[in-house]
Amino acid sequence: MGVTVFEHSLFAPLFGDAETAAVFAPDHTLALYNTVELALTRALAANGLADHAAAERVAALLADFRPDMDALAVATLRDGIPLPGYVKALKAAAGDDAVAVHKGSTSQDIMDTALVLALRSVNAMLETRLGALIVALGELADRFGDRPLMGRTRMQAALPVTVRHRIKEWRTPLAREVAALEGLRPRLEVLQFGGPVGTREGWEGKGDAVARHMAAALGLADPGAAWHTERGNLAAYAAWLAAVSAALGKIGADVALMAQQGIGEIRLAGGGGSSAMAHKANPIAAELLVTLARFTAAGLGGFAQSAVHEQERSGTAWALEWMILPQMCVATGAGLATALRLVAAVEMMGSAGSTP
Amino acid sequence: MGVTVFEHSLFAPLFGDAETAAVFAPDHTLALYNTVELALTRALAANGLADHAAAERVAALLADFRPDMDALAVATLRDGIPLPGYVKALKAAAGDDAVAVHKGSTSQDIMDTALVLALRSVNAMLETRLGALIVALGELADRFGDRPLMGRTRMQAALPVTVRHRIKEWRTPLAREVAALEGLRPRLEVLQFGGPVGTREGWEGKGDAVARHMAAALGLADPGAAWHTERGNLAAYAAWLAAVSAALGKIGADVALMAQQGIGEIRLAGGGGSSAMAHKANPIAAELLVTLARFTAAGLGGFAQSAVHEQERSGTAWALEWMILPQMCVATGAGLATALRLVAAVEMMGSAGSTP
Amino acid sequence: MGVTVFEHSLFAPLFGDAETAAVFAPDHTLALYNTVELALTRALAANGLADHAAAERVAALLADFRPDMDALAVATLRDGIPLPGYVKALKAAAGDDAVAVHKGSTSQDIMDTALVLALRSVNAMLETRLGALIVALGELADRFGDRPLMGRTRMQAALPVTVRHRIKEWRTPLAREVAALEGLRPRLEVLQFGGPVGTREGWEGKGDAVARHMAAALGLADPGAAWHTERGNLAAYAAWLAAVSAALGKIGADVALMAQQGIGEIRLAGGGGSSAMAHKANPIAAELLVTLARFTAAGLGGFAQSAVHEQERSGTAWALEWMILPQMCVATGAGLATALRLVAAVEMMGSAGSTP
Amino acid sequence: MGVTVFEHSLFAPLFGDAETAAVFAPDHTLALYNTVELALTRALAANGLADHAAAERVAALLADFRPDMDALAVATLRDGIPLPGYVKALKAAAGDDAVAVHKGSTSQDIMDTALVLALRSVNAMLETRLGALIVALGELADRFGDRPLMGRTRMQAALPVTVRHRIKEWRTPLAREVAALEGLRPRLEVLQFGGPVGTREGWEGKGDAVARHMAAALGLADPGAAWHTERGNLAAYAAWLAAVSAALGKIGADVALMAQQGIGEIRLAGGGGSSAMAHKANPIAAELLVTLARFTAAGLGGFAQSAVHEQERSGTAWALEWMILPQMCVATGAGLATALRLVAAVEMMGSAGSTP
Repeated sequence: MGVTVFEHSLFAPLFGDAETAAVFAPDHTLALYNTVELALTRALAANGLADHAAAERVAALLADFRPDMDALAVATLRDGIPLPGYVKALKAAAGDDAVAVHKGSTSQDIMDTALVLALRSVNAMLETRLGALIVALGELADRFGDRPLMGRTRMQAALPVTVRHRIKEWRTPLAREVAALEGLRPRLEVLQFGGPVGTREGWEGKGDAVARHMAAALGLADPGAAWHTERGNLAAYAAWLAAVSAALGKIGADVALMAQQGIGEIRLAGGGGSSAMAHKANPIAAELLVTLARFTAAGLGGFAQSAVHEQERSGTAWALEWMILPQMCVATGAGLATALRLVAAVEMMGSAGSTP
Repeated sequence: MGVTVFEHSLFAPLFGDAETAAVFAPDHTLALYNTVELALTRALAANGLADHAAAERVAALLADFRPDMDALAVATLRDGIPLPGYVKALKAAAGDDAVAVHKGSTSQDIMDTALVLALRSVNAMLETRLGALIVALGELADRFGDRPLMGRTRMQAALPVTVRHRIKEWRTPLAREVAALEGLRPRLEVLQFGGPVGTREGWEGKGDAVARHMAAALGLADPGAAWHTERGNLAAYAAWLAAVSAALGKIGADVALMAQQGIGEIRLAGGGGSSAMAHKANPIAAELLVTLARFTAAGLGGFAQSAVHEQERSGTAWALEWMILPQMCVATGAGLATALRLVAAVEMMGSAGSTP
Repeated sequence: MGVTVFEHSLFAPLFGDAETAAVFAPDHTLALYNTVELALTRALAANGLADHAAAERVAALLADFRPDMDALAVATLRDGIPLPGYVKALKAAAGDDAVAVHKGSTSQDIMDTALVLALRSVNAMLETRLGALIVALGELADRFGDRPLMGRTRMQAALPVTVRHRIKEWRTPLAREVAALEGLRPRLEVLQFGGPVGTREGWEGKGDAVARHMAAALGLADPGAAWHTERGNLAAYAAWLAAVSAALGKIGADVALMAQQGIGEIRLAGGGGSSAMAHKANPIAAELLVTLARFTAAGLGGFAQSAVHEQERSGTAWALEWMILPQMCVATGAGLATALRLVAAVEMMGSAGSTP
Repeated sequence: MGVTVFEHSLFAPLFGDAETAAVFAPDHTLALYNTVELALTRALAANGLADHAAAERVAALLADFRPDMDALAVATLRDGIPLPGYVKALKAAAGDDAVAVHKGSTSQDIMDTALVLALRSVNAMLETRLGALIVALGELADRFGDRPLMGRTRMQAALPVTVRHRIKEWRTPLAREVAALEGLRPRLEVLQFGGPVGTREGWEGKGDAVARHMAAALGLADPGAAWHTERGNLAAYAAWLAAVSAALGKIGADVALMAQQGIGEIRLAGGGGSSAMAHKANPIAAELLVTLARFTAAGLGGFAQSAVHEQERSGTAWALEWMILPQMCVATGAGLATALRLVAAVEMMGSAGSTP
């Protein structure tokens, strides 16, 4: 497992974020498919579109349903998405109860809703880390905030500021992005439900009722219509991930500049070693934040190219999302973990020679 | 003037948007600098930091102040930004009243606030066009909405829908982006004010009061602190521009596919000609929307790379913004104008052979 | 393992390329580190900088050396790269022979040379697949080349061509990229060797001789100097990967358009199914090629942002390379495998109604 | 004229490159269209496809032909490209000789060949500047090369090097890119010629002969076939522009770091001023090089998204090229001019306190 640094055992210690990655792991993805299909099956029953007893037998099956992965791989290669093969296996397992499975729905309904559930988990983690980082920066300001620091503009000494001012420049955008996420979550964490061509037809006129039932069960909002081709919410979310990563990248860039010999405005515990030069103490975590910011920015550029979905559902644009968004989430998560580590390692901040 | 299609006389008929471009024209930029300096000068006087009479003489000067452009060019090349040269010329013109000019402020205060004023104008125009397009699409639905259309997913015929459904897929994201802009404008349209290192010091303790006075005069909110290095609001705005362009690109992609021979789901007035094939009627406006969407998406990727501003003010990252954001605005504006033209050109929509 | 589609068991059947991915797997990466350290140790001995017997004992050790991975993870997190921890473990294992290990070198020498060896393997595979695809397209032209096809420009029917002409448009860029790779490999597949600050000092004046010996042993060219900060060769390679993926994306885009109902210019075996619509035969492989082309293009945009390496060695820019380049290789490899599958699935090409 | 910094009178002093921009100016573009049409008309006559006398009258007309720009704008908006309107105007001006104009050709033949001629001019300028910069860096090494400099890796002091070594790191990639351009020009500077669907039919079997005649007259190679949809050569060129800009960006990043207070490894004449702090000497040209490198890298990412051209000729992808490539050329040209200015401004290089 080495295509990406996130899961390559030599690089994951730096770039990885096991907690965020777990949200996108195959077993969890399948569990989310089960969760969404379960909500659908029960919504069908609740609306008289499936037999209650059958629905409950399907529900029991979905508690730990797992398709044969080899057969699923073959189907996925043929179908372009894993969902049809998964549904086929689920129906086979359900036997006569298959009529209560996936009825009237389409792959994108299930997969997008599963994605939304995954992102909800990611958001909870990122919010927690953002909160912790804001607190940690506050504590850093408490410790060193009164010390002088040379304010620098265009890479040149300008006028003295305090450490507190610099930390405020780091902290304010994080607080703003917490607020931005609060505003974004109601747009983002919504049910996807529309059926084959997104019309919510195909449930005997009860498509909206099914959707509302599903949404309630899943704790999501029902936007009232499918958004198979309307990806603006995901795009805004990708932009948010990049904004958080950029805010962390600014901290990293500043720290790497502060840690230079001849500048000496910060002292970090446990600086990284060199295979050749024992005397060096490289600001590893700071550099990593810059790298992750650039990576996430590049991810946003790629994600933006996935935004045009043609006709009622796009194969090409949709698949491009899958290639990029999980990486952006993990990179952002890794950035927050790295920033927390970096802040914890600060032993001194402020201009050399100054006294607290 | 031909580096970009936006202002190249051979290509601007397609890609240009004179109204949006005018917002970024040099004369208008200078006028905005005058506007912001005027607000600053009056705020200084209102807070006892400048003589009232002097401030009013400066205000009179700023009504139509224009520096010598050749001298300014020399200064800009030396300083990396036009503002110091502009301020120097303004102070020279003010003579003894120069003490009431730019006092305590820094170039980025003026230039970012001028940018915000420019974007406010852009937003007003884009909102108007978005509104008009939403109306035009509604009228299109009124005319052709009941006609059948083959719903297509993954580029293949799926199930029949109506023209109304397809138009709804076009219209919904536009309405959402109107709402998103409403939410974004209060974050975006804010004063930039901090002084050399962003601390709001340097006005005898009255920095916040000066800022509030300026903000009120300019009709902007005062965010309470400088955002010299915190560019998340601009990044969110760039993402919004890309989202609007993507929504238009989806219309364009769909129309280009509908207009194919053998598909024939749309008929457009005035299709583009070919230098070689008189029989062709190319869906020019539709294609252009796709191109503009991809360009704006690429712009977002570039803009995201400008998000890490080091220390108290960055030269490199800030200048990257200037290179990208105006183009994104004009491309989005051109997209809206093009979409309006495209919708107006629709003579028929719906599956071939169907009757209204 | 699910952060990327390349290694996520639900998506890898589509996006994965196990053969290319294996080149970047941790075990293979470690084996390449061993290979490069081995070449260095022997080059030291050959130049009188290490004892021959010690060098051979180190060589024996390197035949299957594997550091403790838990300890390595801790070191990597501290050092920002895995190499210092790996070297420390290797030296510990070598005991008194440690003087023959890594002497005078730096992490980037080893890691970049290991990367080059990995890319050499990738290139061999990609070349083989490109050759096979060119042959397969030739056979396709033999089977269907004389059939008529409507030439289409700007998404509109233009003038009739033959299937052979369309296939030539697919095949020519592939042949050109084969030639381009031939021209690029001598620039790309070169030793990295310079020591801590890239000067090739530190080997008692024998740095160039050591480099030449290493290069010969590894079958690489010696460029005569370190290229720690000069990444133009890698950038040209990334551009090449994107160019190959784009050429495949054109095939995919064309096939998806040809496969539309109402167009019917191609018939494919085994079209992908839908969870909702049994009658559909989605052109999965064709769509996938478009997605992979856009992904690789986005990767190029990100990689280009890694091109500025500051001072003697950059931490941030270098790490950004690791995040992007392996994915671009795998996506290109997956694209070639997908294109071969797509071409093999063609049952008919040419305008509907035409006869062979 | 202010959508881009390249042509905005307030910003062009920094970002502009009048010489490169002139290549893309409307008048020059029209002149190139005239040049290509002239070559075509004469090639038609030489191959018996047009009357010699008529061809010469058309040639005389083309010496300074300029269509009515207002009428052309209307046509361009309709046709999606300026060429059909230009040809129509040219034919109207030619009267009975119109049969010797544009015969059998298509807009993309003319426009792409005109682009190639423009890029040939750009390349000549860039090569000249690259050569001058390599010389200037050599002279810089002659002046300061023996002085010590602290070698820095991962933003930390590593081991001493010489100024010569640092300059070599700047110079080597420039030399390599000169060589790369030499290798690229034969692929890039080639005739585009294929007719409406790129088959070189439509000239009574003499398409190749017409092409060879045109190519010879224009001093271009004839690649033997149209490359309407095969844009790999342009993509490689865009990558080359980004590589040059990145090499310049590295110089800029290093200089900005060297110029920091507390580091003091370089002294520059004429540092940029501040509107607020008279004591500052900002390394303007150095920062600008970093900005231009990031802009050009972003341009490459966008250009890569234009690489998939569907069917026989794409409207959308082709137009995306026009939006991006000229800017990349001008940014690269501006970068070279800026680097020359920066090198000329160096008054001292080497570690503070060291003596020459």
